[in-house]
Amino acid sequence: MIELLTAATPNGHKISIALEEMGLPYTVTSVNLGTGEQKTPEFLALNPNGRIPVIIDHDNDDFVVFESGAILMYLAEKSGQLLPQEAKAKSQVLQWVMFQMGGIGPMMGQANVFYRYFPEKIQPAIDRYQHEVKRLFTVLDGHLQGRDYLVEDYSIADIANYAWVRTFNWSGVPIDDLDNLKKWLERIGERPAVQRGIEIPLRAKPEDVVKGAQKMVVT
Amino acid sequence: MIELLTAATPNGHKISIALEEMGLPYTVTSVNLGTGEQKTPEFLALNPNGRIPVIIDHDNDDFVVFESGAILMYLAEKSGQLLPQEAKAKSQVLQWVMFQMGGIGPMMGQANVFYRYFPEKIQPAIDRYQHEVKRLFTVLDGHLQGRDYLVEDYSIADIANYAWVRTFNWSGVPIDDLDNLKKWLERIGERPAVQRGIEIPLRAKPEDVVKGAQKMVVT
Repeated sequence: MIELLTAATPNGHKISIALEEMGLPYTVTSVNLGTGEQKTPEFLALNPNGRIPVIIDHDNDDFVVFESGAILMYLAEKSGQLLPQEAKAKSQVLQWVMFQMGGIGPMMGQANVFYRYFPEKIQPAIDRYQHEVKRLFTVLDGHLQGRDYLVEDYSIADIANYAWVRTFNWSGVPIDDLDNLKKWLERIGERPAVQRGIEIPLRAKPEDVVKGAQKMVVT
Repeated sequence: MIELLTAATPNGHKISIALEEMGLPYTVTSVNLGTGEQKTPEFLALNPNGRIPVIIDHDNDDFVVFESGAILMYLAEKSGQLLPQEAKAKSQVLQWVMFQMGGIGPMMGQANVFYRYFPEKIQPAIDRYQHEVKRLFTVLDGHLQGRDYLVEDYSIADIANYAWVRTFNWSGVPIDDLDNLKKWLERIGERPAVQRGIEIPLRAKPEDVVKGAQKMVVT
């Protein structure tokens, strides 16, 4: 059984969506970011970077994987799903996973920091990141012209980017003019496994609701 | 033959170092970031994100790979070098590649923007990114305690992180107190292939010297 240590954030949702899509059995351990559970010695022993998500594969010598992009790759190779075997198609999937890991994720994250969380309103920083996010969205939109998915078949590249892009409103970056991106969001969002994945972890207890997720409005 | 389209930046150096380490024959096409060559239609046809590095594998149907993390994986799998075959060790390498792609790279990049390039001096933004870079460096330093390399054997994870961390001074983040990180930088920096890799592209013509690289001082 795989244990998923996670919280209701885009990086967390990548993995719960992937696990749901792959049909791998897993348990969820909710990590309370609001109280800093991800910085406890117990958690840092799993991921020295103190970030969710983390998985522990109890069927593989309790092997620990951190970094959401690496978890997606591990699960795809373990399950034989959502990542092509053929070298070129596999590389194309990985290219769009990396585009999310190095671009979409960090830049939407910085937009959120300056637009939502920072104590001061620093307009040049807000502008910088919202413009960069819009640029990256436009790259995705252009690439999706004539395509249903980022690479030929639905893959972990779609999951990685979807989990972030769906929160565009939270970053304050409208996508009204990006038809291909909007249709792709709808296409992915209609998948039952995706709909289950974005509800994990279940917010049963108030203390499970982290500050960011509590305020996050996804439309 | 592999064609490497690159410039003298950390992401570019990852790939030239890897190619030198692997002994793969390659040609270099220098991309002038100062004049925006990475935004020309010809370049965008290779990488719609308009970023270096890009490779074209002329021995594999002119297959194009963008995103430096994906290029490292492609070259490692093509050459059978610097990435273990065994699933756990392979995942560990990929975890530290992702740590660089999603953490070290973007955060050093933002530190550089606000510390070096931004028209206004916005101290809270400078502080934010320098503190985050220091935190990430400390994670690396702690992990390197008792280790020569990030995973057991020298790998693309070391190359990915090295190409960025070596420019710590450019980000204004001292590492005097991080002995493990300093020793690891020295250990990697002594490798002849690394020393060749960071000299690519050769700055033969003044127009090959990009704005950022020209000013970048690496000690």
